[in-house]
Amino acid sequence: MPSWPLNQWYIAAYSSEIEEGLLGRTICDEPLVFYRTSEGEVVGLADRCVHRRYPLSLSHLKDDQIICGYHGFTYDKSGSCVAAPAQKRIPRAARVPSFPVHEQDSFVWVWIGDSDLADTALIPRAPWLDSPDYTVVRGREPIQGRYGLLVDNLMDLSHETYLHGGYIGTPEVAETPITTEVDEEANVVYVSRHMDDAECPPFYANSTGIGGRIIRWQDVEYHAPCLYLLHSRIAPAGVLPPEDGPDDKAFHVEVTYGITPETEHSTHDFWMVARDFALGDEKVTEYLATNNHTVVMQDVVALNILEEVVEGEKENYQELSINIDTGGLAARRILKKLIAAGEAPSAAPAAAPAVAGTV
Amino acid sequence: MPSWPLNQWYIAAYSSEIEEGLLGRTICDEPLVFYRTSEGEVVGLADRCVHRRYPLSLSHLKDDQIICGYHGFTYDKSGSCVAAPAQKRIPRAARVPSFPVHEQDSFVWVWIGDSDLADTALIPRAPWLDSPDYTVVRGREPIQGRYGLLVDNLMDLSHETYLHGGYIGTPEVAETPITTEVDEEANVVYVSRHMDDAECPPFYANSTGIGGRIIRWQDVEYHAPCLYLLHSRIAPAGVLPPEDGPDDKAFHVEVTYGITPETEHSTHDFWMVARDFALGDEKVTEYLATNNHTVVMQDVVALNILEEVVEGEKENYQELSINIDTGGLAARRILKKLIAAGEAPSAAPAAAPAVAGTV
Amino acid sequence: MPSWPLNQWYIAAYSSEIEEGLLGRTICDEPLVFYRTSEGEVVGLADRCVHRRYPLSLSHLKDDQIICGYHGFTYDKSGSCVAAPAQKRIPRAARVPSFPVHEQDSFVWVWIGDSDLADTALIPRAPWLDSPDYTVVRGREPIQGRYGLLVDNLMDLSHETYLHGGYIGTPEVAETPITTEVDEEANVVYVSRHMDDAECPPFYANSTGIGGRIIRWQDVEYHAPCLYLLHSRIAPAGVLPPEDGPDDKAFHVEVTYGITPETEHSTHDFWMVARDFALGDEKVTEYLATNNHTVVMQDVVALNILEEVVEGEKENYQELSINIDTGGLAARRILKKLIAAGEAPSAAPAAAPAVAGTV
Repeated sequence: MPSWPLNQWYIAAYSSEIEEGLLGRTICDEPLVFYRTSEGEVVGLADRCVHRRYPLSLSHLKDDQIICGYHGFTYDKSGSCVAAPAQKRIPRAARVPSFPVHEQDSFVWVWIGDSDLADTALIPRAPWLDSPDYTVVRGREPIQGRYGLLVDNLMDLSHETYLHGGYIGTPEVAETPITTEVDEEANVVYVSRHMDDAECPPFYANSTGIGGRIIRWQDVEYHAPCLYLLHSRIAPAGVLPPEDGPDDKAFHVEVTYGITPETEHSTHDFWMVARDFALGDEKVTEYLATNNHTVVMQDVVALNILEEVVEGEKENYQELSINIDTGGLAARRILKKLIAAGEAPSAAPAAAPAVAGTV
Repeated sequence: MPSWPLNQWYIAAYSSEIEEGLLGRTICDEPLVFYRTSEGEVVGLADRCVHRRYPLSLSHLKDDQIICGYHGFTYDKSGSCVAAPAQKRIPRAARVPSFPVHEQDSFVWVWIGDSDLADTALIPRAPWLDSPDYTVVRGREPIQGRYGLLVDNLMDLSHETYLHGGYIGTPEVAETPITTEVDEEANVVYVSRHMDDAECPPFYANSTGIGGRIIRWQDVEYHAPCLYLLHSRIAPAGVLPPEDGPDDKAFHVEVTYGITPETEHSTHDFWMVARDFALGDEKVTEYLATNNHTVVMQDVVALNILEEVVEGEKENYQELSINIDTGGLAARRILKKLIAAGEAPSAAPAAAPAVAGTV
Repeated sequence: MPSWPLNQWYIAAYSSEIEEGLLGRTICDEPLVFYRTSEGEVVGLADRCVHRRYPLSLSHLKDDQIICGYHGFTYDKSGSCVAAPAQKRIPRAARVPSFPVHEQDSFVWVWIGDSDLADTALIPRAPWLDSPDYTVVRGREPIQGRYGLLVDNLMDLSHETYLHGGYIGTPEVAETPITTEVDEEANVVYVSRHMDDAECPPFYANSTGIGGRIIRWQDVEYHAPCLYLLHSRIAPAGVLPPEDGPDDKAFHVEVTYGITPETEHSTHDFWMVARDFALGDEKVTEYLATNNHTVVMQDVVALNILEEVVEGEKENYQELSINIDTGGLAARRILKKLIAAGEAPSAAPAAAPAVAGTV
């Protein structure tokens, strides 16, 4: 049994990564190849020729078909072989598996598991990622560690104080208690930490221009297994959201992560920071891109180390958990449930109507 | 059970590699050390001292004896210990295994398995490799992949069109059907592809000077497990071999490979290109050496990738084979038979009388 | 069962390595963190936070306490957690294991096993290492090989002739028979080789200034498992120790090794050369430091190779041992006995009264 749920949608790539040519990427231990047809449709196929296993991602794309780089077996977008060397008859079994994909919110999602079930599952939303009301910086980092370590990391933001001190961490993050809620049906974990009089970390001081103390709210929404949303509200101390009308005295940052297992011991860390202020301001964009990349790399280095620690761990080692871990433990429990089910569809809409994936 | 046949002759080295000093090389998972005595005889011994396993290949050669570089145990060419530190009595068991070797056609062959059987087996021939009628370029590349991948590769030359396009591949190679024959007694597989009106690839255009379309014959002779011969005939379109008399209107290239397992996951790829034209022409020699090395490296890169794919493969993965694979499948079947037998001597003479290996 | 004895004192570090800050080091497969308190006491704790396993050695030391670099769990020198994020109550189980340490003869020793037994075991001595009567050069090299290979190496000095020829080896070392004694109670193996008319190797010629032939005595004392002493006496040929009075016509070198397993396949090689002549002579010090480092690296390279050989070894491989191996075989036997006992305290005083380790 793999350590991730099957029959789930996972973020395979940013849409912008699949334009020209072939993209090879392993998702949940499945080597896949992606490309975009001349009509703009994204195709996801198993990344090995049926003949002698050569990776199709290292092959040739021509007229929306992949020609294997080893012996020339040729596949159409459904994965069917349409040409083979030195013979006219194509064996009926000559077909590579095709995977349901769906583009949404600047992501290419792929369905891992039984493709007949793909239509039944809702894909969680992050509409700010391609909205004109937000400016977004983003990146993707490989982690040499299991995806659960990144889930743990993001569910317990008290680590910001210690691992990201001087960037996004201040003493209040670790000191302020959290509240946790779980939507067992939608498989969503909510963790909130509201700091009503906090130091403003450089990350937000430099991007918002706020000088003094702030209200800082962190509202986490984890749509197991793949999409993590941190709704971050920053406002000068004392500025609360109005009873009605827009919350335009506050700054909103949608920190978004795609947490996609690559293998049992490696993870794709898709990270995005969307803001509703200083729209299009290149200097702020550059500042947030550079500094968030630094913060992401602090996590990557720590998680790579933890993977080695866990791998070298003696059997029956016991962790100790405390209040701050309530959200992380809930996430683990839901993942465990989804893995056991192997088929439980995940996720409800985050901020917009869900759309079923189409094959 | 190893994945190669025991009780077989394998190419260990080119004769020219064993002149002065000690050569350490692993053949079929056996770490061996080779050297040439002052009388010109090649010696092959197990590459570890009986005392504390130190590699003899990292030791000292003096007066046709190896003195271990760790504690000075000294071995003669039969592998017998003739001196030990701080005592006069040499323990009777102090002897490293010696392996039958035989020099022929510019190769040093070594016998892996029961040395009593070495005399009974014929070593296949490639006499052009040290004939004055041919000029030869050659090299040796390590492959980080099992030897069976190289056998597959060479038995199905339709890959030339895709992996070696622009060098030795043209569309006709993949398009032209093959004929296959198997000599079950001699354990030789023959695969022929005769293209009677084909494009001339740069490799041959630049070395023969032929401008237009060509007759191109590829006659493969695989002497399982180790020696692969590709008799290549290139002639201007329409020029067939005469009924009698020499075929001197055609160009002949003897592409020769030694396929020697190093370990379960690595292979020695000995490659040679012998031609019967432009003899001694340095420019042609340089051109063929450079370009064939490029072609070999295209294979090496592909096979290294395939090894990773096969290693990461899920159980019960099924390949799909078609007509072009007839030769490769026959080779696999013969190897399987030889492995099971573990003792079936291999190989009949290719172009000259066979000579039994001598110890 | 590990391949080293538990319930033993092992050399973890030189005292000089633990001054400011945190030192992470794995000893016998236990990741440990060391630091020195403001009062000068050395502390040894398990190197992972009880919460999410983050290495404490990558964390922060403040006021003699370690603050975890991930979420801020804080530990005092006993390993007790004294602060946790976002809550006042510290879980009772929040404690990292603490390991008995003892400073002596310029070493920090650590006790691996049942800490209640630490007081019962004597720690062997090497008092010259912080004596004003000696000048010492020293270093530490990682070996990518099991510690037993270093024990083998040091117990059989006949290898000096072959592996260290031109440095410390001369023909007489390999030629001269040894005498071996074993103290079964104290778990000490003694090996002596007295060469009364020997070539003076450059190592000693250049440091002592002796020009001609020498008396060279090597008296080995191996206190299993960790401390190896080579009492080396060099004197001009014919100069024997006086019946009474100091042996001041001879040069004495105390070659000392700490042999500490890091993991099953790696070892900390602590090496020291203490001399009772040319005290404080920088040129001699520099010469001995450089040349002994060269000699140590010759061993390291050889042992790294042997580890690969042993790892790749076929089952049931048999070594062959001869007279020179008597000491090494005795050492192996004692180590095997100590491993089986799992609790047998080791070591008697080498040259001074033993001191029990204190926690």
